[in-house]
Amino acid sequence: MWKPSDFEIPTLGEARVNSEDVPGLKNIAAGRYWVDDDERVPYQCVFKRDSELQTDLAFEKAGARHRLFFNPGEVNAGIVTCGGICPGLNDVIRALYMELHYIYHVKSVTGFRYGLRGLDPSYELEPIILNHERVSDIQAHGGTMLGTSRGHVDVGVVVDTLVARNIHMLFIVGGDGSQRAAHGVWQEIERRGLNIAIVGVPKTIDNDINFVYKTFGFDTAVSFARDALDAAHIEAKGNPNGIGLVKVMGRDSGFIASYATLASITVNYTLIPELEFDLDGPGALLEHLEARIRHKHHAVIVIAEGAGQHLLEEDERIVDASGNVKHGDIGVYLKNRINRYFKERNLEVNLKYFDPSYMLRSLPANANDRIFAADLARFAVHAAMAGKTDLMIGRRFNQYIHVPIPIAVATRKKISLESEIWMAVLQATGQPSSLQSRNRT
Amino acid sequence: MWKPSDFEIPTLGEARVNSEDVPGLKNIAAGRYWVDDDERVPYQCVFKRDSELQTDLAFEKAGARHRLFFNPGEVNAGIVTCGGICPGLNDVIRALYMELHYIYHVKSVTGFRYGLRGLDPSYELEPIILNHERVSDIQAHGGTMLGTSRGHVDVGVVVDTLVARNIHMLFIVGGDGSQRAAHGVWQEIERRGLNIAIVGVPKTIDNDINFVYKTFGFDTAVSFARDALDAAHIEAKGNPNGIGLVKVMGRDSGFIASYATLASITVNYTLIPELEFDLDGPGALLEHLEARIRHKHHAVIVIAEGAGQHLLEEDERIVDASGNVKHGDIGVYLKNRINRYFKERNLEVNLKYFDPSYMLRSLPANANDRIFAADLARFAVHAAMAGKTDLMIGRRFNQYIHVPIPIAVATRKKISLESEIWMAVLQATGQPSSLQSRNRT
Amino acid sequence: MWKPSDFEIPTLGEARVNSEDVPGLKNIAAGRYWVDDDERVPYQCVFKRDSELQTDLAFEKAGARHRLFFNPGEVNAGIVTCGGICPGLNDVIRALYMELHYIYHVKSVTGFRYGLRGLDPSYELEPIILNHERVSDIQAHGGTMLGTSRGHVDVGVVVDTLVARNIHMLFIVGGDGSQRAAHGVWQEIERRGLNIAIVGVPKTIDNDINFVYKTFGFDTAVSFARDALDAAHIEAKGNPNGIGLVKVMGRDSGFIASYATLASITVNYTLIPELEFDLDGPGALLEHLEARIRHKHHAVIVIAEGAGQHLLEEDERIVDASGNVKHGDIGVYLKNRINRYFKERNLEVNLKYFDPSYMLRSLPANANDRIFAADLARFAVHAAMAGKTDLMIGRRFNQYIHVPIPIAVATRKKISLESEIWMAVLQATGQPSSLQSRNRT
Amino acid sequence: MWKPSDFEIPTLGEARVNSEDVPGLKNIAAGRYWVDDDERVPYQCVFKRDSELQTDLAFEKAGARHRLFFNPGEVNAGIVTCGGICPGLNDVIRALYMELHYIYHVKSVTGFRYGLRGLDPSYELEPIILNHERVSDIQAHGGTMLGTSRGHVDVGVVVDTLVARNIHMLFIVGGDGSQRAAHGVWQEIERRGLNIAIVGVPKTIDNDINFVYKTFGFDTAVSFARDALDAAHIEAKGNPNGIGLVKVMGRDSGFIASYATLASITVNYTLIPELEFDLDGPGALLEHLEARIRHKHHAVIVIAEGAGQHLLEEDERIVDASGNVKHGDIGVYLKNRINRYFKERNLEVNLKYFDPSYMLRSLPANANDRIFAADLARFAVHAAMAGKTDLMIGRRFNQYIHVPIPIAVATRKKISLESEIWMAVLQATGQPSSLQSRNRT
Repeated sequence: MWKPSDFEIPTLGEARVNSEDVPGLKNIAAGRYWVDDDERVPYQCVFKRDSELQTDLAFEKAGARHRLFFNPGEVNAGIVTCGGICPGLNDVIRALYMELHYIYHVKSVTGFRYGLRGLDPSYELEPIILNHERVSDIQAHGGTMLGTSRGHVDVGVVVDTLVARNIHMLFIVGGDGSQRAAHGVWQEIERRGLNIAIVGVPKTIDNDINFVYKTFGFDTAVSFARDALDAAHIEAKGNPNGIGLVKVMGRDSGFIASYATLASITVNYTLIPELEFDLDGPGALLEHLEARIRHKHHAVIVIAEGAGQHLLEEDERIVDASGNVKHGDIGVYLKNRINRYFKERNLEVNLKYFDPSYMLRSLPANANDRIFAADLARFAVHAAMAGKTDLMIGRRFNQYIHVPIPIAVATRKKISLESEIWMAVLQATGQPSSLQSRNRT
Repeated sequence: MWKPSDFEIPTLGEARVNSEDVPGLKNIAAGRYWVDDDERVPYQCVFKRDSELQTDLAFEKAGARHRLFFNPGEVNAGIVTCGGICPGLNDVIRALYMELHYIYHVKSVTGFRYGLRGLDPSYELEPIILNHERVSDIQAHGGTMLGTSRGHVDVGVVVDTLVARNIHMLFIVGGDGSQRAAHGVWQEIERRGLNIAIVGVPKTIDNDINFVYKTFGFDTAVSFARDALDAAHIEAKGNPNGIGLVKVMGRDSGFIASYATLASITVNYTLIPELEFDLDGPGALLEHLEARIRHKHHAVIVIAEGAGQHLLEEDERIVDASGNVKHGDIGVYLKNRINRYFKERNLEVNLKYFDPSYMLRSLPANANDRIFAADLARFAVHAAMAGKTDLMIGRRFNQYIHVPIPIAVATRKKISLESEIWMAVLQATGQPSSLQSRNRT
Repeated sequence: MWKPSDFEIPTLGEARVNSEDVPGLKNIAAGRYWVDDDERVPYQCVFKRDSELQTDLAFEKAGARHRLFFNPGEVNAGIVTCGGICPGLNDVIRALYMELHYIYHVKSVTGFRYGLRGLDPSYELEPIILNHERVSDIQAHGGTMLGTSRGHVDVGVVVDTLVARNIHMLFIVGGDGSQRAAHGVWQEIERRGLNIAIVGVPKTIDNDINFVYKTFGFDTAVSFARDALDAAHIEAKGNPNGIGLVKVMGRDSGFIASYATLASITVNYTLIPELEFDLDGPGALLEHLEARIRHKHHAVIVIAEGAGQHLLEEDERIVDASGNVKHGDIGVYLKNRINRYFKERNLEVNLKYFDPSYMLRSLPANANDRIFAADLARFAVHAAMAGKTDLMIGRRFNQYIHVPIPIAVATRKKISLESEIWMAVLQATGQPSSLQSRNRT
Repeated sequence: MWKPSDFEIPTLGEARVNSEDVPGLKNIAAGRYWVDDDERVPYQCVFKRDSELQTDLAFEKAGARHRLFFNPGEVNAGIVTCGGICPGLNDVIRALYMELHYIYHVKSVTGFRYGLRGLDPSYELEPIILNHERVSDIQAHGGTMLGTSRGHVDVGVVVDTLVARNIHMLFIVGGDGSQRAAHGVWQEIERRGLNIAIVGVPKTIDNDINFVYKTFGFDTAVSFARDALDAAHIEAKGNPNGIGLVKVMGRDSGFIASYATLASITVNYTLIPELEFDLDGPGALLEHLEARIRHKHHAVIVIAEGAGQHLLEEDERIVDASGNVKHGDIGVYLKNRINRYFKERNLEVNLKYFDPSYMLRSLPANANDRIFAADLARFAVHAAMAGKTDLMIGRRFNQYIHVPIPIAVATRKKISLESEIWMAVLQATGQPSSLQSRNRT
C-alpha cells in the first residue's frame, strides 16, 4: 500500500518566473486561472455517512501555475510517442506544440522519431523541428506523425541526447512500459543533477493505466469494437443457428470488450482476462451456449485477446508445418472448440469469426478523445513549465492530477468482477456469473 | 445555499423485500453488488492540503439495494419521455424495459405517448404496453419510440391516470421543465398519500442540468457540431477572405459551442450565452475579426443560439412582410452585421452561414452516450425499486448519485468564465478574453 | 458465344390486364412511363467510327409494362434471400414489399425464411406474412430480416410449396448459385405447366455477376475495405519499416480489392485472383517489396482471399495439432512468408495483418446501394407482373435490363488485366505489371 | 439539335511522340491499353428491336493515346479549381498531379489559387508549385487546397499569364460557368495561334451538367442530404403532428432532392425546380398535407432551393428592418406558409425546419466519388497529352468520353417528369403526380 509521501511530485527547483510576464498567458491571467500547488484531489471519494472521507492520500491537482521554474522563452521542448499507435496521438502532439508555442512561446519544439529509439543516435533518425504547418491538420489522421516503436533503449544514451540537443523538457507519450522507461530516464537525469523535466502522457488503447479515468483513444476504439459486435450480431441472426464470435484487443484487461458490450447491447457472452472461465463441464460456456442456440438460435460472443490463456495452456496448440508452436490465439482456439463441440453433437451452427484487430487503433480520435488528448497535453505543459518532473498526467473524479510515475505504473488497472461496470455487463448480456470457474464449484 | 438536509431522498416506506429473492438479481447477488443507503459522494472533491474536505454536503450513492420497497413481481411501471428529442432516448427506454423485465421481472411496463400529455386522457393517446419485440433494435434509431411533447399538463390528471392504471413507479425522462413537473406530480402523490415512486432521468442536449457530469446525447451532439465547424473551416479556407459562421444549440449555456470548439480546433471565436460581448468599438468582435481577416484571410465563428441576446434588443429586428417582429435569431443577425461591416469598409469577405440546428439531436446515440443512457436507466430502476422517490439520477466524480429533484432544478448549469473548460477554449481559439465587455472597460 | 435468341425472356402467357386499371399505378400512368417490350439495350456500346454498332445482341429493357399478365389484386407474391448477407438485402425486401403492396396492391407478400430451405417444409420454418410494420425501418439494419442460408434444396419440394401456398411469383435474391437454383425451379414449374413467375435479383458482395454494372452492397463494402486499407497505411507509416497487409473478400475476382485500392490511394500492391504472381525470384513480389522497404520504409499490400491459390498448392500448408490440413488462407500465408523473408535478410520489418472479413457485409447500405437495391426490386416486380420469368434484373449502360438467368450465370465477371480499371490500379499503386508471372518471363 | 460535326474535338496538331517512349507509361504499354481516336460511344443506347441504333451522333472515347502531341518531359501543366467547393476537389488535384508527375513525368505542375483570379496578376495570388508532399493526404480533407472563387476574369489576362508562365496545358475544374470561361480562354488561345490545351473537369454538386452520368461529390452530398431527411423524419415522428421540412441544394435541378428522397425512403413530398406546383387550392400541396397530417400525424417534405420560385414572386416577400426585400428563400417561405395554414385551421402541427446547406459540400469524397474524381483527372491528362483541347471529360454508359465544351454547356441537365428517376420518386413518396399544376387543371 502507498504512503501519503508516495504522492509527492519531484520538482527541479524553486519557481523563478511569474506567469503574468509570459505574454501568451495573458488570457489565463485575465481569467485568474492559477492552480495552487496545495490543491488536492483525494484518492477515494465515496464514504459512509457520519464518517470522514480519507484525505491523507491525495493527488496534486494539475493546472497552470502562477509561478514557473523555466523561463519559457528559453525552453527547448521535446516530444516522443512510444508503443502501439492509438487514436489521438496526433492530437497530443498538436496540442503540446500549440500550448508550447502559442501560449508559452518557447524557443523550439523537437519531435523525436519512432519512439525512444529516436533519441539513440545509432538509429540515425533525425528529429523533426515542429512548426505550425507541420502540425496543422494532423489531427484528421490516425497514427502518429512522429512514428513510434517498442523496445529497450539505454537511458544513458537518451540523456546524452537530451543534453547534446539542449532539451529542457521531454514529453513521453506512452503506456506503462514507456512510463517505466521515462522514470529510468528521470533517475539518470537526477543522478547527473540536470534540470530536465520528464512528463508522461498516458497512452494505452486497453485503458489499463491507473489513475486515468479513461485513456485517450479508448472511446474511439470502443465505437469501432461496437461496430464489430453489431456485425457479428447481424451475421448471427441472419443464418440458421448463427454464432458471431469477435476477438478484440485487451491483453491484460477487459475494458474494450466490456464497454463495447455495453455499447452494442447485442452480446450474450463477454469473456475477459479477469474472468477465469471453463469451456467444458456442467454450466460452463459450451453447455450454456448450446442451450441458448437450441432455444434462441443465435448468439454473440466477444472475447478479449488476453482472456482464457489458461485454456490454451491445457490444450492442444496450433502448430504450423514446420512443427513450431504458434502464439496462442484464443479467438481462433475458441472458434475451433465451438465448431467441434457442435459437430460432435450433430447440431448445425454457422459460426462467423471477426478479428477487427488493429483497425480500431488507427482511427482519428472522435470528438471526446480529441478533447481529452488535448487536455492531457496542456496540463503536461503546465506541469513541466513549473519544473515538475517524473510525473504523469492523470484524471480522477473529473479533475486532472499529477501522478508520480512509480505510482502510476505500480499496477495495471483491471476490471473488478464486483464492480458496477461488470454488473452492467452481466445485466446487458444475461451471462451467468456462474461462468466464472470459482463460482461453479 | 443548500443545507445538508436538502440532499435527503424521500422514500415511500420501509424496504420489505430481499433482493436475493428476486430471481433476475442472482447475478448481482453473486457479485455482492449492493450499495448501502449510507454511502455518500461529496458535493465537492477538491481541497487544500492540510485542510479537511467538506463532507457534510454529500449525495446518496445510486445502485442496487439489498432490500426493496416494492415486490418486483407485482409492479406496474410507467415510462414517459418529455421535451425535445435527444440522442439516447430510445436507449433509456430500452434499458428501463430490460432492467424492469429481465432483472426485476416486473408485471408490466407501460410507455406513455407524446410526453406528459400521454397521461391526460383528454388527448386520447393510448399508451403502449412494452415487450421485447417492441424495444428490440430501437436503439439503432434516433428520436423516441414513445413520442414526446412540451407543455403543461395538470398534475391531478396525471396522478388520476397513474392510479387508474395502477402504476407503481413512473420514470420521467426529461429536462428541467419536465423534472419540475415530476416534482409537482410527486407532491400531488404525497398529498394523496399514495405509494407511487417518481424517478427522473435527466435529459437535455444543452448539458445544462446540474449534478450530471454530461447529459446523454451531448457527446453525440458535440460530434455533429464539430462536423459543422469543420465544414465552416473548409469553406472559410476555400474562398478568398472566407468566414464560416455556425450557429449551434445552447439556449442558456455554451456547452455545445465550447466542446465542439475543443473537438474541432478550427474555431477562432466562440460566442456563448455566458459571455457578454460587444460587436462594435475598439477591441470588440468586428474590429478583431477585421484584423484577423486582413492578416490570415479566413476565420471561423461559432455562436450558441442563446448568445448575444443583449445585442438583438438594442438593435434593429427582423421584420416580416406583415410587420411582425420575428423571434430574434442571433445567427442571422450576426451574419448580416458582419457582411454590412465589411461592405462598409469595402473589404471583400465570403461569409458562409451554417445552421445545423436539429440535425444533431435526431442522431442515434454514439457508443459513449449509449452506455451512459443505459446506466442512468438501470440506476433509476434500482432507486424506484427501493422505494425512493422525487429524485433524479445524477453523476458526480464518476459516481452515479441520487439528486433530490428540487436541488437538481434549482439552477441551471452554466460555463464559468474562470473554469478549466473556458480556459481551454481561450487557448484553442486564441480569442482574447477582452472580447468580454467588462474586460474591455 | 451467345446467339441473339439466347436473350429472349420466357413469358407465362399473353398480358391480359391494363395497367391503367391498377389504382396504385396512376402516378406511373400519368407520367406515361410504360416501357415497350421492343425496347432494347445493346450488348456492346463502344464502336469504331464509320462502322456500325452491333445490335443483334441486345437485352430487353426493364420497366413498368402497359399490359400485365397477372391481375395484381389476386396475386400472392413470395420473397426469399439466399447465400451470404450483403448490405442492401433489407432494402430489396422492403422495396419489393412497397412496390407489391402500395403500387400493385397485391393480395399478400410472403417472406420465406433462411433461404431456399424456408421452402422445404422439413425444416419447419414458418414463413412470415409481410406487412407495413414488419418492413418499416428494416433498411436501417444490415443483414436480412428473413434470414438466409446456403446449400441445396430439392426443386420439386420448392415447387410443391409454391403450389401449396398458392404463390404466383417468387423473387429470389441471391448470387449465381442461387440464380442457378432459380433456373432449376423455373424448369420444374415449366415442366408442370404452372403459371408461376421466377424473377432473380442479383446479389453478390464480390460484384462478380455479369450484366450488372455493380451489385448492391458492393459500394458499401468498398467503403469499409477502404477504411481497412487506410488503417493499414497508418500502421505502416507509424512503425519503422512498417508493412500493412490486408485481406479482403473476393473469392474469384478482385473487384473489392481493386476498387478499395482506388478509393484508398495508399496501396502499393494489389493482388487479385485474376493476377498470377510469384513471390520468389527476380522482380517478383518479395524482391520488389524489399527494394521498396529499403527505399521508402513502408508499404501497404491488399490481397483478395482468392488470390495466389497457386502458391498455397505449391508450398507448405497450415497444419493443426491433429495433423489436418486447414483451408489455405492466403493472407496468413503471405504474412508468414513476408516475415520469414525479411528475417532471413536480417531486415527489421513491422508487419501488421488486417482481416476485416465479414464486417463489410453486415453494414446497412449506403445511399447509393440503397437506391440501387430498391431500383432492382421495383423492376423485378414490373417484370413479374408482366408475366416474365426465368430472368434476372441487370443493369447495363445505366439502363435496367432483363437478363435470361442461364446467360447471367454462364460465366463469372472478372477483372481483365487489360481493362481501364486495372490500368487505374496500376497507376494508383505504381505496382509493376511485371509482377504478373507471364510478364516476367 | 446538334449535328454530328459538333462532337469533333479540336486538336493542337499532329501527335509526334510515342507513348512507349515515356517511361512512366510502361505499365499501360504492357497492358496494351491504348484507346484509338476512332472509338466512339453513341449519344443514345436504347433502341427498338428490328430498328438500328443511331450512331451518327457519338462521342470520342477517352483514354490513353498511343501517340502524344506533347513531349511529356517538357510540359508545364496548370490546374485551377473554380466555383463552389465540392467533395472530391482535392482528389482531382491530387490525381492530376500523380498522373502528370508519376506517369507522364512532366516538368512541373502549377496550382493557380482561388479560381481564375489566380491567373490575373492584379490579385497578387502567387501560384503553388505542386510536389508530392503538398498533395499527399489532401484527399482526407474537404474543400480545395488551391482555393476557389467565382466571378469574371478577362480571358486575355488569363492567356497572358499562361504564356508568361510557359504553361502548356490548363486543367479547369469547374461547373458550367467555368467551362464557358474555359471555352473563352480556348478561343483566345486559338486566336493567338498558341499550343496550349484547355481541358475541363466537370464539377457541380447539383449534378446538372450534361453528358456526365453523375458529377463527383454528388454521391457524398446525397448521403449527407439523406441524413438530413432521416433527421427530419425522426423529428416528425417524435412530435404530435410533426412535420419535417428540409431544404437542400439544387438551384435549377432536383437531383440532390430526388436522390436523397430515394436514399432516405422517409419522404412524403419532394419538391424540385422542374415541378411546377401550387400550394393552395383543391388537391394542391397544403390540402394534401392536411389530409396526411389528419390521417398519419406526420410528414416529411424536401424542397430544392430553386423550387417554387413562381410562388415567391406572386406572394409576400421577406422584408428586413430597413425595408429591403431579401432574397427569396423558398424553405423559409414554405415553413411560414405551412405554419400559417394550420394555425388558421386550428390544427396543432410541430414543424421543424432543416437547412443543411453547405455542410454537404465540404465533406471529403466518399469511396465512390474518390474513384470517379481520380478517373476524370487521369482521362483529362491523357486528353491533354494527346493535344486535344476545348473539351470536357464526360461519362456516358459507363464509358469516359470527350465532350466538346460548347456542347457540354449548351443546356443544363434536368430531371424529366417522365423519367425513371422521377417515377421512382413518385413511388417512394406516394406523392400524387397531380401536385403538378398542369396535371390538376
